[in-house]
Amino acid sequence: MDIAGWRKQIDGIDRHIVELLNARAAAAAEIGKLKRNTEMPVYEPEREKQVLENIRQANSGPLPDLELQHIYERILDVMRSLQKHEMQDGRP
Amino acid sequence: MDIAGWRKQIDGIDRHIVELLNARAAAAAEIGKLKRNTEMPVYEPEREKQVLENIRQANSGPLPDLELQHIYERILDVMRSLQKHEMQDGRP
Repeated sequence: MDIAGWRKQIDGIDRHIVELLNARAAAAAEIGKLKRNTEMPVYEPEREKQVLENIRQANSGPLPDLELQHIYERILDVMRSLQKHEMQDGRP
Repeated sequence: MDIAGWRKQIDGIDRHIVELLNARAAAAAEIGKLKRNTEMPVYEPEREKQVLENIRQANSGPLPDLELQHIYERILDVMRSLQKHEMQDGRP
């Protein structure tokens, strides 16, 4: 396959990743609502450790664990900030 | 659904995202090999713009475009650094 072919494949993978990141954000928003009802904190370091452990377990390469964790730290940052915004706005 | 239920759902989504990120890294590695053969540069700003345009088009929310782009900037950083390493190591 040539570079254009691989890029087409990557574009398809990216559209799928976007869909999953949105499903993840929707689930995180639901958790945000439940947390607001019970006054639980948005930042739970123990849960974030579990998330990183889960992705390490799921990782069969070629991405090294450390690089994968690097990506997930950004994903968790974004999800945390969305939950906080929703909690501050008091939106349903 | 309670918080534990949503978290179980998120863990499943994360395992799927990990799989796709690895498929993406494998495709990027193939591009890296082709670039090495033709002495093309690893960093191609025009291609990165296309990637960001593709994910914006694919985004139907609830993640705002800007937050999604924030995650993708990290993904592209990691992919670029992997391609560079492979090119320096000269590994197949």
